[in-house]
Amino acid sequence: MIGLGLIGGSLLRAAAQAGREVFAYNRSRDAVRAARDEGFEVSENLSATLEHAEASNAIIVVGVPMPAVDAMFDMISQLAPQCTITDVVSVKGAMLDAARHHGLAERYVGGHPMAGTAESGWAASFPELFQDAAWVVAAESDTDPGRWRDVAQLALDCGAFVVPANAADHDRAVARISHLPHVLAETLAIAGEAGHDLALGLAAGSFRDGTRVAGSSPAIVRAICEPNATALLTALDEALDELQKVRKSLADNGTLGDLADRGHAARSRYENVERTPIEDISVGEDGWAEKLCEAGRRGGVVKSLDALR
Amino acid sequence: MIGLGLIGGSLLRAAAQAGREVFAYNRSRDAVRAARDEGFEVSENLSATLEHAEASNAIIVVGVPMPAVDAMFDMISQLAPQCTITDVVSVKGAMLDAARHHGLAERYVGGHPMAGTAESGWAASFPELFQDAAWVVAAESDTDPGRWRDVAQLALDCGAFVVPANAADHDRAVARISHLPHVLAETLAIAGEAGHDLALGLAAGSFRDGTRVAGSSPAIVRAICEPNATALLTALDEALDELQKVRKSLADNGTLGDLADRGHAARSRYENVERTPIEDISVGEDGWAEKLCEAGRRGGVVKSLDALR
Repeated sequence: MIGLGLIGGSLLRAAAQAGREVFAYNRSRDAVRAARDEGFEVSENLSATLEHAEASNAIIVVGVPMPAVDAMFDMISQLAPQCTITDVVSVKGAMLDAARHHGLAERYVGGHPMAGTAESGWAASFPELFQDAAWVVAAESDTDPGRWRDVAQLALDCGAFVVPANAADHDRAVARISHLPHVLAETLAIAGEAGHDLALGLAAGSFRDGTRVAGSSPAIVRAICEPNATALLTALDEALDELQKVRKSLADNGTLGDLADRGHAARSRYENVERTPIEDISVGEDGWAEKLCEAGRRGGVVKSLDALR
Repeated sequence: MIGLGLIGGSLLRAAAQAGREVFAYNRSRDAVRAARDEGFEVSENLSATLEHAEASNAIIVVGVPMPAVDAMFDMISQLAPQCTITDVVSVKGAMLDAARHHGLAERYVGGHPMAGTAESGWAASFPELFQDAAWVVAAESDTDPGRWRDVAQLALDCGAFVVPANAADHDRAVARISHLPHVLAETLAIAGEAGHDLALGLAAGSFRDGTRVAGSSPAIVRAICEPNATALLTALDEALDELQKVRKSLADNGTLGDLADRGHAARSRYENVERTPIEDISVGEDGWAEKLCEAGRRGGVVKSLDALR
């Protein structure tokens, strides 16, 4: 595990609890010390960690922020030339580009566990973070099927279920359900604060929940949203269209138009989203990656690799 | 109590628990029966209830949706010509206008408890709903000070603290912290659904919390937001300005600009909002209503009428 933030730290704990052999690198000494005190094998020495990974044929999980990925891929290509590489970074297109740029595409399988809290860092990590969470394991037309299975098994061992998706579909989806929520939460917080103490003092559940993720560190919000700027822009433009429509309705006749009906129907659909097990695809068969992605688009998930044909 | 929805029902329960004599009217027979089964004095007969209120010098609390208020004020002016009147409707300007229109202004004191859940109706009501919640008790230049104290005491007895504000300030504030959150939640739900099963299946905490109030009934959302269309339009335009700014920043250079920093600062200010007790104003003294509202604007609250000078 490269990087022991909330996600990386929780992954280390969850994989260890599942009985897997785990070791980690982290840049800051405090987290290294804290993790060691709990009995984990953690180093501040990146080269030694990558050499250890290569020697033990480990899966390398990259858990550093996007801006640090290029340097990390550079080191991996030099010091761990055989290992399977995955990651927990929240954008997959830019990661895939970076992997290709560094000649790592044939052993890279993108990953994204859809879990988190408002906290960050090793101190906030816990092994149950991924329990029953969705974990995207990216399948591209050139993904190695054996490595895909290995990465999927890691996600399953951590308690998650696997959602297959290619990088482009992933990025468009998370723009809607993760990055746009951040933009709207920040915007709502700003609009509330402009009402000064009276407005903030009257704020109850709708404002509290609607601004919750604005409590995340601005640096983390930027690191999550900005590498996905193109897809986020598309989702934001759709939201702006909706808001302009309701603005016009409020101005013209003092009503919300059909916004509340459509929003309520959408929320109900979210609450009742069905995750159907994918069973009729064999990883490695002709067109397996496209078939998995198509099944994922229809709400399919993998809860066990044995269930796949 | 006129109307036993979530708020009205909870108010009936809380006031009874505080030892106050309570009785209620409700239109639908089911809630009447359910409340009677719990030992409450509840009638389906509005005239009889209002006559009873007049005979016992009760405070009449109007807890019906805004569209039903005109007819209710009509009945009150005929059958309960002396009672103090307050309400729990989420908009105060339109209520004040209606009270003036019906010649009730001198005995009307607007109210708005800032509490609720995603549920609605008598079955969802519970007496602790207002515990430590803000409850606006509106103070206008022509508000009767004795009646203001009576309504404030009712709010305090229900476990809330009182935030004094005039109707216009209240409506501008709740547009920001209650009505805009609803509009953004509905919009986010729609944007998520447009990503179909893949996006909805990947949605985690930020989407869940950001769309929570889109789970409220569309009719209730419209009844809450639409009577405050003018103030909501102002808040929405501010939000649109922010979103256009971040849109431009994403399109020009792929960044969020300063949105995350300002949003985070705003959320922190909300988390740390201080409610200072108002102590140096005597209700009824010259300019008392304006003084209370000015204190409320600065974050002042009333936790006990004895604390006022």
